[in-house]
Amino acid sequence: MEQMKVLVVGLGLIGGSMCKAMRRFTNHLVYGYDTDGAVLEQAVRDGAILEAVPKSGFHEFDLIMVCLHPRAAKAFFDAHIPDFRPGAMLTDVCGIKGALVEHVTELAAEYGQRYVGMHPMAGKERFGYPFSEGSLFLGANCIITPIPQTSKAAVCILEQLVHDLGFAHIVETTPEGHDAMIAYTSQLAHVVSSAYVKSPTLEQENGYSGGSFQDMTRTATLNEEMWASLFLENRKPLLFELNTLIENLQAYRDAIDRDDYTTLVELLRDGRIRKEQNLLSHAKDRRE
Amino acid sequence: MEQMKVLVVGLGLIGGSMCKAMRRFTNHLVYGYDTDGAVLEQAVRDGAILEAVPKSGFHEFDLIMVCLHPRAAKAFFDAHIPDFRPGAMLTDVCGIKGALVEHVTELAAEYGQRYVGMHPMAGKERFGYPFSEGSLFLGANCIITPIPQTSKAAVCILEQLVHDLGFAHIVETTPEGHDAMIAYTSQLAHVVSSAYVKSPTLEQENGYSGGSFQDMTRTATLNEEMWASLFLENRKPLLFELNTLIENLQAYRDAIDRDDYTTLVELLRDGRIRKEQNLLSHAKDRRE
Repeated sequence: MEQMKVLVVGLGLIGGSMCKAMRRFTNHLVYGYDTDGAVLEQAVRDGAILEAVPKSGFHEFDLIMVCLHPRAAKAFFDAHIPDFRPGAMLTDVCGIKGALVEHVTELAAEYGQRYVGMHPMAGKERFGYPFSEGSLFLGANCIITPIPQTSKAAVCILEQLVHDLGFAHIVETTPEGHDAMIAYTSQLAHVVSSAYVKSPTLEQENGYSGGSFQDMTRTATLNEEMWASLFLENRKPLLFELNTLIENLQAYRDAIDRDDYTTLVELLRDGRIRKEQNLLSHAKDRRE
Repeated sequence: MEQMKVLVVGLGLIGGSMCKAMRRFTNHLVYGYDTDGAVLEQAVRDGAILEAVPKSGFHEFDLIMVCLHPRAAKAFFDAHIPDFRPGAMLTDVCGIKGALVEHVTELAAEYGQRYVGMHPMAGKERFGYPFSEGSLFLGANCIITPIPQTSKAAVCILEQLVHDLGFAHIVETTPEGHDAMIAYTSQLAHVVSSAYVKSPTLEQENGYSGGSFQDMTRTATLNEEMWASLFLENRKPLLFELNTLIENLQAYRDAIDRDDYTTLVELLRDGRIRKEQNLLSHAKDRRE
């Protein structure tokens, strides 16, 4: 694809990894903006960006990728959309889309710019630039959230870029569809991990666990301010998922309490079949 | 260590892996007993066992390792302890120890045999001989559950064997201590995985998830009869852990419902700190 001059705003885990991946897998010219000067210096030393860009240079870019938490991303777009040039493409990587997408789409249109929301489904249980890596997105899912006003051409360019960075699957859905799915596949998992480590038994765990404990608790090291914001901006779908899980856990709890082998086997068998069907849908997808 | 003639009873995932690991990493002579003749033939073809042994040959063995589900293991010991020779060592790999250990210890003592319970903390989300592998235990934890009557010499021999198979950590605890820990580190994780896939949102999950969803649901493909038995034989500790988790999930749910950012950040921060301390205890352990 045509070489673009790209500005990555916010060099955390995702922003830093985006810079490194673009430098490694594309020929785009990658620049960075961050409020932390030390991170920018490190990114230049690492070759993750060509150089740091002051606000006065924002108008030079073809693509601006905002890698900030949702509230900071909205504030950044509100403050700086007038600084970008007409025709520029804007995107973000926020884990929540509902409120942001329509707002930024309309604001960008006022200045002749094209905004497309995306959510790279990749991450780590640690955060910040030092954990970023160019291979973070290899094989991952990426969700793109166009709305009726979104430029089809801009969606194509973004999807090509995402493809070049090594993502394996790109799906398009509405911002609301995205948020409902993410409540289940990501947010609920983070709540469970965080709740799981609250048992007093944790203190004696060392030496007594296998892979399942590690899997359950891996994401408990999350960034609490970011995730609290994400959860509260997605309250309705997340409450639905939390209530559903609690109800289901209670069904197992009650069967165990009643010493009810038949019901317990039924509950576990139903879970096994659902998971197998889910694995089957993934396998089919890979074969296609 | 001295070469032993070992009989593995039950060539499922764990039994099959024990055979393969002993053949690969030790010089013991490994034989198998299973009610499924096809599995025995396959194990001989794979070189996992030297040959299948009829019940009439049980008296020839130095070590009998029973790799059956808890109820079947108890039934096997009850039926066949008289068939083993005085001085033989007996062990099992059951995921629940409370009821079994004292019973088998006493029964074995009547026949001049030495029983030691163990629980290899390794597994897979699939079960059966075809999934067994000799490398299954590399780096894993193994719990040994002696009681006051247990032969110290037999514990030493078993721990040497476990060490030779590639386990990284061996801990000793009481059968009751084992069961309380396992309710948290393993059984609760399997209940959560199984309950997690009950959300109606699962049907649209494909393409919308990252690592955290896969981690949460990996073990949902469990063997429902085995796990239902394990759960019901460990009701009290498991109910404690399930109630604790449900209460903790409700605290997050309530904070999200009230739109209470401060409490939510507090809950998540507390979880992060607990998980970090847990990781720290593992890291210290590795350095020692």
